[in-house]
Parts: sequence; structure tokens; C-alpha cells
Amino acid sequence: MIEFQEAQRIVIEKAKQLSVEEVSLGKALNSVLAEDVISKINLPPFDNSAMDGFACRFEDGQEASSENPISLEVIDNEPAGKVSKEKVERGTAIKIMTGAPIPEGANAVIPIEYTEEKGSKVSLFKPLKEGENIRLAGEDIREREVVFRKGNKIGPHEIGLLAALGVSSIKVWRKPVVAFISTGSELVDISEQLTPGKIRDSNSYLLQALIEDCGAIPLNLGRIGDDKEKIKEKIKEALSKADVVVTTGGVSVGEYDLVKDAILEAGTELAFWKVAQKPAKPIAFFIVGDKLIFGLPGNPGAVIIGFEEYVRPALLKIMGHKRLFYPVIKAKLSHDIRKKPGRINFMRVVVYKKDNNYYVSSSGGQGSGILKSFIKSNGLALIPKERDFMNEGEEVEVHLLKEIGEEISG
Amino acid sequence: MIEFQEAQRIVIEKAKQLSVEEVSLGKALNSVLAEDVISKINLPPFDNSAMDGFACRFEDGQEASSENPISLEVIDNEPAGKVSKEKVERGTAIKIMTGAPIPEGANAVIPIEYTEEKGSKVSLFKPLKEGENIRLAGEDIREREVVFRKGNKIGPHEIGLLAALGVSSIKVWRKPVVAFISTGSELVDISEQLTPGKIRDSNSYLLQALIEDCGAIPLNLGRIGDDKEKIKEKIKEALSKADVVVTTGGVSVGEYDLVKDAILEAGTELAFWKVAQKPAKPIAFFIVGDKLIFGLPGNPGAVIIGFEEYVRPALLKIMGHKRLFYPVIKAKLSHDIRKKPGRINFMRVVVYKKDNNYYVSSSGGQGSGILKSFIKSNGLALIPKERDFMNEGEEVEVHLLKEIGEEISG
Repeated sequence: MIEFQEAQRIVIEKAKQLSVEEVSLGKALNSVLAEDVISKINLPPFDNSAMDGFACRFEDGQEASSENPISLEVIDNEPAGKVSKEKVERGTAIKIMTGAPIPEGANAVIPIEYTEEKGSKVSLFKPLKEGENIRLAGEDIREREVVFRKGNKIGPHEIGLLAALGVSSIKVWRKPVVAFISTGSELVDISEQLTPGKIRDSNSYLLQALIEDCGAIPLNLGRIGDDKEKIKEKIKEALSKADVVVTTGGVSVGEYDLVKDAILEAGTELAFWKVAQKPAKPIAFFIVGDKLIFGLPGNPGAVIIGFEEYVRPALLKIMGHKRLFYPVIKAKLSHDIRKKPGRINFMRVVVYKKDNNYYVSSSGGQGSGILKSFIKSNGLALIPKERDFMNEGEEVEVHLLKEIGEEISG
Repeated sequence: MIEFQEAQRIVIEKAKQLSVEEVSLGKALNSVLAEDVISKINLPPFDNSAMDGFACRFEDGQEASSENPISLEVIDNEPAGKVSKEKVERGTAIKIMTGAPIPEGANAVIPIEYTEEKGSKVSLFKPLKEGENIRLAGEDIREREVVFRKGNKIGPHEIGLLAALGVSSIKVWRKPVVAFISTGSELVDISEQLTPGKIRDSNSYLLQALIEDCGAIPLNLGRIGDDKEKIKEKIKEALSKADVVVTTGGVSVGEYDLVKDAILEAGTELAFWKVAQKPAKPIAFFIVGDKLIFGLPGNPGAVIIGFEEYVRPALLKIMGHKRLFYPVIKAKLSHDIRKKPGRINFMRVVVYKKDNNYYVSSSGGQGSGILKSFIKSNGLALIPKERDFMNEGEEVEVHLLKEIGEEISG
């Protein structure tokens, strides 16, 4: 039996990025860059107008005011997307739209609100400064500038900038295919009627959602009874199709807990089995090459803890993310707690803020079969291994599964 | 010109939930429940064992210890998924797996670690208490309990519990189809070569990603030049295919800014045009029936502000979410700032924590054409309308676009 911190360290150490693949920008959202992105252009590509107005020479308009309007000859009209062939000289102006290129000779733009156009003339009602309302080529991004670094996560704003730079595809870390298998002869599909002794296979739905939610690619390989040979074949199939395999059930000590042996016989190496934690103590972790196999216990509460604390950070690392863990905060217990010493406990809690301090209170029953306390919680409080009692007001570490204040179900 | 707060209020008021649709559980992730969910069963459905071990009568084992082991007759072996036909009487035990039903007559389970099996006998090495290691039917959820409320967001843990309850489909709010159209004769596709005066249509990529990221369904209706009739036809097409329409460009005062008129001529009603804010002042908002049309300015910086502050909260409300806005915090300015009075400014900032206080500093150029300062930022600081100068150390309101500490690009 190893410690939680050591088990988590081993999992993270073994999780490796996969190959690099090139994806079109439209499919890159929430991927992680596997290369630096260097701009090939200036952005904006040319000096352009920040306003709808008139491009002119500031020297003409320095003294303009509503009492003393200055009149200029309008020699052209330049919509966005066109370039005027005319040159702005003293005494002249070119009508210009936001974003249109600054015509040759012009060194300021007066916004349309401060002008009046009459026939071929325009009157200026406001003094002009040199460069006013001109956006300079390259003022956002310069040619050859390193705009993004390998490891940057591509959110919507990043997509916008990449598009503006004309980057139509980028190199990202390939997302892992994560196969999952529910084991146990007691399981029936959720749409089936329950018969005595049977329970619904909630884990396959749970894992599908957990994998999808962290951005990896779920692959449901179905449900299988307590039959070692069949489980072994399923594991081999999973290893041939996926980068990561997650099984549920069958890693404990009972006679029908065959999964651990089946996974080993499929040609994998055991990295650890059993962690001094509650729930999910019997978690087993195997590797074969760069592939990872997580043997999670069958109780859904243990599946959640096993996924959130081990599988999810591993998947995030594989996808190239730098931030692997949920935010960690310190919070005070709002009530006493009692536990058996010997294992770290992940207590499902409601985290809240009061007088600039964080507090936690248990969100309900903590058994590994209990799901309600998960949906009522927004965090996991880590109750240290050696403790058997903690007082109200003592401080604990909390893994924040949801933002504080985010809605809690029910 | 109206105030930001009033404009945002109008948008939220007009955003209405769409019809309710039934989706299979496997497709329900991140939807919002449009009904309460009441359990039809007890969870767990029957009393079952929390451990691999032996089900027996606690009265037999009360005095058991390693010095004084108690021997019981093993009368059956019950794997998970099966129900023993035998009844546990004093002096007998049934071998049982985690999750298997407690056999008739048994009132405790002794874990396998504290026993030794020999032939048909098992020795108990540890005193037993009544009910030990038995999970009672309904201890997680009781039949007829209201487990979820209308309005609850369906995350992975919720999916797990719904599956365990045998809920194979749920009623959720339909997600809106959001059509988007880029306007402007200066635009070319991002894969095209730039010619003088042309710029890349980054907005369509930006909007696709922004819409996708908040969980709605993007519908790209392409790029269109500055031609009022064509824009009007496109708006009509958008209104026939989508619940929400977002246009970029053409809502300002220039001669080629035709979009506002085109949208009105497509049969919509103007709810507001121009907000006392910077950037995105010329934002226009229209309605027709329950459909919303956002006319955003063409600058990508204005598109981001317009989306994050108006479109996103509206889409979240339409999808049934309770939490429409990014978290709001107060932070101290880490430097002086100067601005023109008359409009609220959304300043792109880096938010950081120091000595238990939040601070913000500008993340770079704040022009509405500038994208780099967005990817370098994690928040928007709201600089009040009337201010022209703010001192280092003064407090501002900040809309947190990313969690503090979350990676910033570049």
C-alpha cells in the first residue's frame, strides 16, 4: 500500500504526451500548442483608420474648432478594402472608413462626428494632432514576433488572433483515446429492469462524461461479467484501440475480483496496487509502453475519486496542459470530524467563503457507494492519514472541483 | 446612447429559454435540466455488503479476536449479482462480495482480512457490531426523493447519479443555434493571400469558437460585402435557421455601415444602438419575436467585448443556466490610468493576488483592433464612465474571464 502523494506522482510521471498532429484552426479549440507560433505578418498589416472620417494632414487641422472650422477639398472616398490612388496634400482630405488603409500623404484622421461635408468640401470642427486615429501597421503584432508558445492552450481569443495572423492550421498534441470497461456480473444496462441482486451500470455513463469533460476521446468498450479470460481479451482489445484504458470493478481481494490478474496477463506491468486513501483504496495502475491502464474499484464514489485525482491529471498531461490539478485552497472545518487513522480521506464538502475565510462542511454520506454527496459538493477536503479526529476550525487542504459560488445540484 | 448596465439588462430580459427537449443521458453533458428528477427507486436498491467478506450474525462475532477466534460454518458463497437462497442462522456465515445483497438473516459483514477460511469453516478475528459493513437500501437516495431540480446543470457526477437511478433520458432546455455573419468588403478568408487594403476575416473563427465554448451551436453563414440587399437576404436566411444571430461590422456611422439598416429592413425591432462603453460602443441589439440579433462592430476586440459582456450571458440564459456572468471581483490598480470621460472602459488586465489582495495591471494596448492584450489577459477591469484618471491603488470591478493562476498565452 503506497501513499496518495506517491501514487499520484507515479501516475503523472508515466503520463506522456502523444504524437503531434496538425489540425485546422476550426477544430483547434481547447487543444494545446505543440509548437511556437511566429507571425509571418504585421498586424494590422497596414496603417489604417481607427474611425470613420477624413484622412488629412494634421498641420491643416491644428487650429480647427467649431468657432473656427477649417475647410478641406475632398479628393476621394475610400471604403474599407480599397486603396485610394490619390495622395493627400495640404488642403485636401480623403473620406475613409474604419479599417481602411491610410492614403499616401495623410498623417491624421478626423472622425466624421467632428466634420460637416458639403459638396466637395469638408469642414473640420476640432483640432487635430499628428497620427490621431491612425492605427500603425504592426501595432498589435510585429512580423517575426513569437505570438504563442508551445504549451499554450487554445481558447476562443487565441483562435481569433491565430485567424487574424492567417494561421489556418496549427500543430497540437494529439488527444488520447480513453477506452473504458465496466466489469461485474451484477451489472445491467441503465435501461434494463432491475432483478434481485442486480444494479445498474452507472460507471460507463459516468466515465464517458468524465472523459469527455476533460477533453479526451471516450471509447466505450462495454460491460463484462466476472470472467478472467473474457476480461483479458477485452483489455487486449482496449490496448489495441486506445492510449489509456480505465476499468471499473474487480481490483479488490474477493474471489471474483479478477480484473487485476486479467490486466497483468494481458501483458502489462503493475506500477502500484492499493493506495492508503479512502475511498478508492484498491486502485491499481499498470503500464505497457506509454499506455496507461487504471483499474478503478467498482463503487461509483471510488470511480469519481480515482478519476478526479489520478486519471484526469494524467489525461491533461497527455494533452499537453500545464495545469493538471484542480485549484487547491486551505479551508477551516465548520464541524468536528472523526475517521479511522491509516488512510487519507477525501471528504466531499461544500466550500464557502465567510469573512474572507474559506470553510468546508461535509456534503453528506461519505461511503464509496454514495453519489448524492458528490452532486451536493464543490470540493474534496483531504483529511490527513494519521488523524482520527479533527476539530471544528482546524484547517484542511481542499481540491476545488467547482468554482466557489458555482451552482450545486439538487 | 445608453449605459452598459442598462444595455446588459435589456439583453438579459429579452433572452428566453427555448423549447424543452428530451435527450438520452449520453448526450446530456453540460445541459440544464428543464424538469425535477424524482427517483423511482431506492439507491442502493437493496441492503448490500460494503466489503468482500462473510455475512453473519453479529451476536456470534461480538467477542471475536485474534486471541479468541470464533468459528462459523460457511453455508454458501454469494458473488455480486446473485442472491443466496440460504438463510444465515446463528453459527453460520455466507461468503459475500462487495455490492452483493445481504442474505436473509445476516446482520453484519466481517471483511475477509479479519478471517481465515479452512474447509467449510471460517474463523473471525475481530469483534463485530450490528449492521457493520452493511449498506442499507436507500441510504444514498430514497424512492420518491427529489434528486435534481429544474435548472440544475448536468455535469459528469450528475450523469453518474442519473445512470444509477436508471434515468436513461432527461428533459433539458434546447441549445440555441447561433448564426454568425461577417460583413465588410475588406475581408478575405484566412487562407487567402492578403492584397493591399484587405484583412483576414478572423471574426468568423473567433465567433465559432466563442459560441462553441459556451455550449451553444454555431452556424457559420459566411462573409458578405458591403451590400445592403445581400446583407438583408442573409439576415432573413439567418433568422429562418437560427435562434440567435450575430453579425460583425457595419453598425457604425460610415457610409458603408449598412448592417444596422439591413437588419431593420429584415423585419426586426431595434432594442438599442450604441452603448456608452469602450470598446464596442456601436453595438446594436435587435429582436424579432423571441429571436435575438446582435450587431457587433467589426473590430475583433469589440467582437470579444460584445460577445463576453452581452452575447454569452444571453446564450447562457437561453440554455437555462442560472449563472450568466463571469465571476466579479474587486481589485486594486497596480498603476495609474488615464482615459477620456463619458464611457465605461473595459480594460484588458492581468489579475493577480498578492498579500490576500487582488491587483490588476493593463495587459497591453487597449485599441479595439488589438488582440494581443486579450490573449495576455485573464480579466476585464471596468473603469467607470465619469473617470478621466485613476490612481494606483484605487479599487475597480473586474470580470474574471479565466481563473486566477490559469495559464495566460504567449
